[in-house]
Amino acid sequence: GKLWGGRFEESVTDAVERFSESVSFDKVLYKHDIRGSRAHATMLAQQGLITTSDKESILSGLDEIERRIEDGEFVWRMDREDVHMNIEAALTDMIGEPAKKLHTARSRNDQIVTDLRLWCRDAIDMILASIRYLQVALVRLAMKNEGLIIPGYTHLQRAQPVLLQHVLLSYVEQLERDIGRLLNCKDRMNFSPLGACALAGTGLPIDRFMTSNELGFIAPLRNSIDAVSDRDFVVEFLSANSIIAMHLSRLGEEWVLWASEEFGFITPSDSVSTGSSIMPQKKNPDPMELVRGKSSRVMGSLVTLLILCKGLPQAYNRDLQEDKEPLFDSVETIQCMLEVSAEFAQNINFNHAKIQNALPAGHLDATTLADYLVKKGVPFRTSHDIVGRSVALCISKNCQLMDLSLVELRSINPLFEEDVYEYLGVENSVKKFCSYGSTGSGRVAEQMHFWVSKLQIS
Amino acid sequence: GKLWGGRFEESVTDAVERFSESVSFDKVLYKHDIRGSRAHATMLAQQGLITTSDKESILSGLDEIERRIEDGEFVWRMDREDVHMNIEAALTDMIGEPAKKLHTARSRNDQIVTDLRLWCRDAIDMILASIRYLQVALVRLAMKNEGLIIPGYTHLQRAQPVLLQHVLLSYVEQLERDIGRLLNCKDRMNFSPLGACALAGTGLPIDRFMTSNELGFIAPLRNSIDAVSDRDFVVEFLSANSIIAMHLSRLGEEWVLWASEEFGFITPSDSVSTGSSIMPQKKNPDPMELVRGKSSRVMGSLVTLLILCKGLPQAYNRDLQEDKEPLFDSVETIQCMLEVSAEFAQNINFNHAKIQNALPAGHLDATTLADYLVKKGVPFRTSHDIVGRSVALCISKNCQLMDLSLVELRSINPLFEEDVYEYLGVENSVKKFCSYGSTGSGRVAEQMHFWVSKLQIS
Amino acid sequence: GKLWGGRFEESVTDAVERFSESVSFDKVLYKHDIRGSRAHATMLAQQGLITTSDKESILSGLDEIERRIEDGEFVWRMDREDVHMNIEAALTDMIGEPAKKLHTARSRNDQIVTDLRLWCRDAIDMILASIRYLQVALVRLAMKNEGLIIPGYTHLQRAQPVLLQHVLLSYVEQLERDIGRLLNCKDRMNFSPLGACALAGTGLPIDRFMTSNELGFIAPLRNSIDAVSDRDFVVEFLSANSIIAMHLSRLGEEWVLWASEEFGFITPSDSVSTGSSIMPQKKNPDPMELVRGKSSRVMGSLVTLLILCKGLPQAYNRDLQEDKEPLFDSVETIQCMLEVSAEFAQNINFNHAKIQNALPAGHLDATTLADYLVKKGVPFRTSHDIVGRSVALCISKNCQLMDLSLVELRSINPLFEEDVYEYLGVENSVKKFCSYGSTGSGRVAEQMHFWVSKLQIS
Amino acid sequence: GKLWGGRFEESVTDAVERFSESVSFDKVLYKHDIRGSRAHATMLAQQGLITTSDKESILSGLDEIERRIEDGEFVWRMDREDVHMNIEAALTDMIGEPAKKLHTARSRNDQIVTDLRLWCRDAIDMILASIRYLQVALVRLAMKNEGLIIPGYTHLQRAQPVLLQHVLLSYVEQLERDIGRLLNCKDRMNFSPLGACALAGTGLPIDRFMTSNELGFIAPLRNSIDAVSDRDFVVEFLSANSIIAMHLSRLGEEWVLWASEEFGFITPSDSVSTGSSIMPQKKNPDPMELVRGKSSRVMGSLVTLLILCKGLPQAYNRDLQEDKEPLFDSVETIQCMLEVSAEFAQNINFNHAKIQNALPAGHLDATTLADYLVKKGVPFRTSHDIVGRSVALCISKNCQLMDLSLVELRSINPLFEEDVYEYLGVENSVKKFCSYGSTGSGRVAEQMHFWVSKLQIS
Repeated sequence: GKLWGGRFEESVTDAVERFSESVSFDKVLYKHDIRGSRAHATMLAQQGLITTSDKESILSGLDEIERRIEDGEFVWRMDREDVHMNIEAALTDMIGEPAKKLHTARSRNDQIVTDLRLWCRDAIDMILASIRYLQVALVRLAMKNEGLIIPGYTHLQRAQPVLLQHVLLSYVEQLERDIGRLLNCKDRMNFSPLGACALAGTGLPIDRFMTSNELGFIAPLRNSIDAVSDRDFVVEFLSANSIIAMHLSRLGEEWVLWASEEFGFITPSDSVSTGSSIMPQKKNPDPMELVRGKSSRVMGSLVTLLILCKGLPQAYNRDLQEDKEPLFDSVETIQCMLEVSAEFAQNINFNHAKIQNALPAGHLDATTLADYLVKKGVPFRTSHDIVGRSVALCISKNCQLMDLSLVELRSINPLFEEDVYEYLGVENSVKKFCSYGSTGSGRVAEQMHFWVSKLQIS
Repeated sequence: GKLWGGRFEESVTDAVERFSESVSFDKVLYKHDIRGSRAHATMLAQQGLITTSDKESILSGLDEIERRIEDGEFVWRMDREDVHMNIEAALTDMIGEPAKKLHTARSRNDQIVTDLRLWCRDAIDMILASIRYLQVALVRLAMKNEGLIIPGYTHLQRAQPVLLQHVLLSYVEQLERDIGRLLNCKDRMNFSPLGACALAGTGLPIDRFMTSNELGFIAPLRNSIDAVSDRDFVVEFLSANSIIAMHLSRLGEEWVLWASEEFGFITPSDSVSTGSSIMPQKKNPDPMELVRGKSSRVMGSLVTLLILCKGLPQAYNRDLQEDKEPLFDSVETIQCMLEVSAEFAQNINFNHAKIQNALPAGHLDATTLADYLVKKGVPFRTSHDIVGRSVALCISKNCQLMDLSLVELRSINPLFEEDVYEYLGVENSVKKFCSYGSTGSGRVAEQMHFWVSKLQIS
Repeated sequence: GKLWGGRFEESVTDAVERFSESVSFDKVLYKHDIRGSRAHATMLAQQGLITTSDKESILSGLDEIERRIEDGEFVWRMDREDVHMNIEAALTDMIGEPAKKLHTARSRNDQIVTDLRLWCRDAIDMILASIRYLQVALVRLAMKNEGLIIPGYTHLQRAQPVLLQHVLLSYVEQLERDIGRLLNCKDRMNFSPLGACALAGTGLPIDRFMTSNELGFIAPLRNSIDAVSDRDFVVEFLSANSIIAMHLSRLGEEWVLWASEEFGFITPSDSVSTGSSIMPQKKNPDPMELVRGKSSRVMGSLVTLLILCKGLPQAYNRDLQEDKEPLFDSVETIQCMLEVSAEFAQNINFNHAKIQNALPAGHLDATTLADYLVKKGVPFRTSHDIVGRSVALCISKNCQLMDLSLVELRSINPLFEEDVYEYLGVENSVKKFCSYGSTGSGRVAEQMHFWVSKLQIS
Repeated sequence: GKLWGGRFEESVTDAVERFSESVSFDKVLYKHDIRGSRAHATMLAQQGLITTSDKESILSGLDEIERRIEDGEFVWRMDREDVHMNIEAALTDMIGEPAKKLHTARSRNDQIVTDLRLWCRDAIDMILASIRYLQVALVRLAMKNEGLIIPGYTHLQRAQPVLLQHVLLSYVEQLERDIGRLLNCKDRMNFSPLGACALAGTGLPIDRFMTSNELGFIAPLRNSIDAVSDRDFVVEFLSANSIIAMHLSRLGEEWVLWASEEFGFITPSDSVSTGSSIMPQKKNPDPMELVRGKSSRVMGSLVTLLILCKGLPQAYNRDLQEDKEPLFDSVETIQCMLEVSAEFAQNINFNHAKIQNALPAGHLDATTLADYLVKKGVPFRTSHDIVGRSVALCISKNCQLMDLSLVELRSINPLFEEDVYEYLGVENSVKKFCSYGSTGSGRVAEQMHFWVSKLQIS
């Protein structure tokens, strides 16, 4: 029978049991559940609610259960509903009476949310490490390709020349904010619900500060109803993951583009490519397509959680059991997306020659030319117009700006002088950039230095 | 090595292999994959692309593989990527050369989408049966509670008295439209992509009409690029499921309310209730809370698919591999939600006495009284105002409309006469309803008759 | 005072009035609201619930109100809450007593959903016309570019050569299924809720079949509670729109790619391009970027509706007022996306020469070569491997398959003969396709003929 | 003509102009756009890029434009696309040449994201104030109802008695975390993109630190590509809003329940209620239904943004224009939801007598009884079982636990003694709670004191 079966005469139907069990997925919480139980038992003993001997049997029983689980000897039983009841019932099978005291001044309502906060805290730490790993991979990739100029795009149209390092560091910046979000989320969730019991607290003399401290929480949550009701920490975590996923989907898109025949910027190695079952010549950048694709499930999980919690009254409702699978999937997916992106970064080569050959196309130096005129005292709007007409001339002549003669340039505007050619061409253009955060070589070197140092890359 | 490995010199890294494999989840398509291969091999033989003897070995090899899978003897290998390659490679291990001809004029791009359409077709049939099952459970529940009047609500405020049958049939109607959506979806997806190959079709003389026919499709899809690119049929299916989920979430909400102490309309049996680990008196309607909660994941899966497909260029992109898990989860979840809702319907009792005792509260007969005045020739707006003032009088006297004396009523408006009492009180009020589709007994009986007959309930 | 103010002593606060009014957006329903009121008044008169003279004043009053609204003379008042109350109150101001009878046997609950179904029906018709318009634009674009071969892609890697017509028609196919979805949705929603009143129907002798017929509905809805409770028709409509949006987002992505310097397939005319405020040379395909971007709000609106309806009990809840803005926005956005896509299609030129020059890259003929070997009796898997090795040779020699000598080919496999060169090169490759729905010229001509005829393009 | 028209020969079509304009909604950014331009012009002058006299005309021109906008005299022109071009063009119309220099070393790409960050910063401050306002309203409501015991629920089943103050403070806690999220979000977004220009920075000698400082930003963003590409700050903001919306949707649900006839906990005043157009007796808690409903659009806006950004390559893409309407709507909706919730809180009365009368139902003291046995040394699981059987006895006798005689209790377990009656009954039960954060009176008083002091309520 169920451990809560006192007032029940009939057991639940098979269909309902299958539908409502959670042990098939919440068993991954076993480590955190046992950790919480250890802290709880220790506190109960200190407060005199159980004896020291009870505590000792409970602790050694829990050790044995943890060992069995990790050695694959533990039998998870669906009829025992969830991770909590499986462990408590196994403990009872093992040590008898003392086990029946473990759930004193505790409910599954505060227990699950304690487990979940502990689990999330660890999960965030793992993701943080993976973000760092990807940042390092991106910075190393940048180091390997110092000086490489590629076209910068807006609207997927060639815009201005940029250093590849500059582009790669833009992703490093975005990931850094992702780290900030996760750290804030972790700090905010790091409070202990244990002792909130069902929803109202308890009349037994427990010490919530002790368990909070034991479990590494900052403090116990102040309000027991809030403690068992709210899943905002899960939603916040999944939001942070969704933003990471959004960033990675953009990286995925960009690298898929770069690997195309048309862009041809990168060649992924065979070890991160796959082939076609029908087309013998194909070599596809599948990992980055999947990174882009998998971003959708991370976002979908966030949506699931928001819909789940919408409109529920306080306090615990069984609906909340559904918070776990999206959470677990989001964390695992993000982890893999980060790792595989790093692995991909480690296995691509930039086709310097091909990129350089293609650089003249797209009039990437047009804005530099406009700046030239600004320096000569032309109002920017006027210089924009002059250069616009110069580009139109190039198009009609099917040439580049640097191919226009001074006579031709002067026919558009007499302010052009011989020194204009120091501003034309992609290399000249890049050289001219000087503003903070810009793609100018010195500025990018500053950025590189900052990241190499911050990430302790040697 | 991979079956597509001709031009590759290195194999993929472990992380990439784990990240990109799909066999761990797409193996559930094995039956449909084999079915497709049977049809394809048969066609290839008819068209002279393989010999009859090749075909025979392929077919008997496929039979054996299917048997092994169903008997749990088949070893799924992650390094063989997906269900297609696992089966083809096993076939090759088993029968040798002829197996190498099976993939003639076929790509995984058309193969997977053929499998998926076949699978969805079957899944829809299963869901249709489950909807019917729930409709029957609701109608039977209505039959068991003929004549029971409950308060009808708008804004969760008591509005007008309604027959319970009328409420239950409103869900039956909604489910009927869900059936319509699924049938439309099935018809629209029931076209064959097989033979579209990678994206462009083939130069080999295949017969797509033959395989289409063999697999029970209406016809081959007209455009091979469209055939491998689009997943609109999955999105449509998940949309239909999301609407079912929305309907069931409302049923869940309603029944959770009805099971509360405050409403007290229903008592679920122990067999569909669960208890609390801490509070000994608790008996919770968990299945319906979970039905409500699980609606969120069904909707989340739809969102995942939409995000997945957004912004992909034609034709196949690896992102599309991510369409399967949300699809499979949506189907399984909806199935269980439907079944458990039916099981719950079969295991609740309506508390007739408690409901009847509580009926006088809320002035449910106010609108009937307004109609009374309309029949006396009072414009509706005026009668609405008169009854509004009568209700205000009741509130000040803390009584019901039927408790007001004729003198009191006439003090508000002289048109009230003795026959007004035939319109007051919940039973009288229900009796007066007569419009088509209304809660009047005769009208509800018509509805009941319609559904009993349509659902062939005896 | 409000028209429902009988029992109320205080009016709502300004903040609540502003928060809960809907007239600022639901006034767009005025035409359908008036149409519904005309049908309702006519029915009331026929049933003897109002006099013929009442009906006449109501109808002419409604005519005058409609005229005033269309001429911009009507003053919408927020304190009158919604479109219904604004019109009814204005009618009362205008014609007095008879107006007070209009709301006989009607509630805003059935009225709004009647308006909404009528509005959606019209909206669907408009969208259908816009889809046809885009289909025609795509087919005409295909007609203008007969014979143009472009690379077909999978994984954004060059895969096989395809006729541009074939690609464009794949979108026409997808749009055709979108039409099917909208038609199904329209049929399913085309039932009349009018007469369901608040939720329970009425005791007054109305004729719901008459109003249903008058308003062009198929029949009245069978169950009055269902009639006022459910918004599944809105969700289904927004789902259909989301799938259209998904399709258009892919078209947008593809055309943005095609307009890039790197692909260079198309040049949009100035009339559908925009420039940069800083970079004088830029010419961006903004309309298609916005089509891609706006797909997100169409999908977002669907999500809003699903969340909105999730977990609401029957019958009407005020939450449902929030169904309108997402619906209106979805319809308007889809309309514009379709129109602008068509306009873009009418204003792009394909760069035939540039495309042709780039065609040799990517070994697009590799699969055709594999088919060649299949025709020689080589099992497909073996031929795939042989061609894979041939491609590897090309890569090492930096040449195309057609550049390999027969000796070189034979060194890989002796089955190659002189006729192999009839299979190599993009033009040869396209010529070989013959399967139904393939990119073979004859097959594509069949498709073109089908669509030109179906869309009656002359 | 457009200000970027240099290379263009044709102007855009009307449909494209309507489709791509943003001024109809981005004009709300005018204040922040002007503020940004003031800082930019001042910096340009300091750096010698424009003259002091240019700067003076620009600044006074901007003052005049701001005045005109605020006085409603400014004509917004759709053909001038957006807020930036409208203001710059108007400035040019007004002051001529100097205006043409304002866009020196600036692009709309950095300009819009500067405006948007400034706007979000202000929006967050407004929302923070509104959250505080609601917190105060909740605490005041709690102060007014000191000592009121209501049933606490889990699974919407009566669970344990709780103080109303405890429930209300649980929402205050949740809102406090919402404040934390918004503050983190604001800190993270408070960096200046100005000077990133199109994407690559500029070759002109600008001072990004000066403008950053002038605009109250912490520092300039480090990487110009990142600066113009990413909208993570918008997504984070909308996530924070979605969590607030989730919290408020739960408050809405709870209060709608409480206002029902069945719960009957609260009576909203007429000033926050609305009536029915057909049912004269109805008084509906519409504002809280709408709060619950409007949560869906806040969540929908978040989804829109995620879909929008998914899969875009760096840097600016026109899709990003679509970030504004969801952002603006989210902010306005959340603001109103918070204000109206506070207004509702100020206008409800708790029905003390009715609540107290209903309290005995539901065996709310069962857990307290189990704790009683624990104190007697019974293991909790055993005591849970004993109380479960006691409740079963009550149900069979249709009585409460306190109605059981000591003999009856002892028949279940002999450990029960006379002092058991100090633990039974709702008042006794509440008195026993003592754990930190529990519903015990002293503990709740601590919480009240904390919040009254923190929120400076006098």
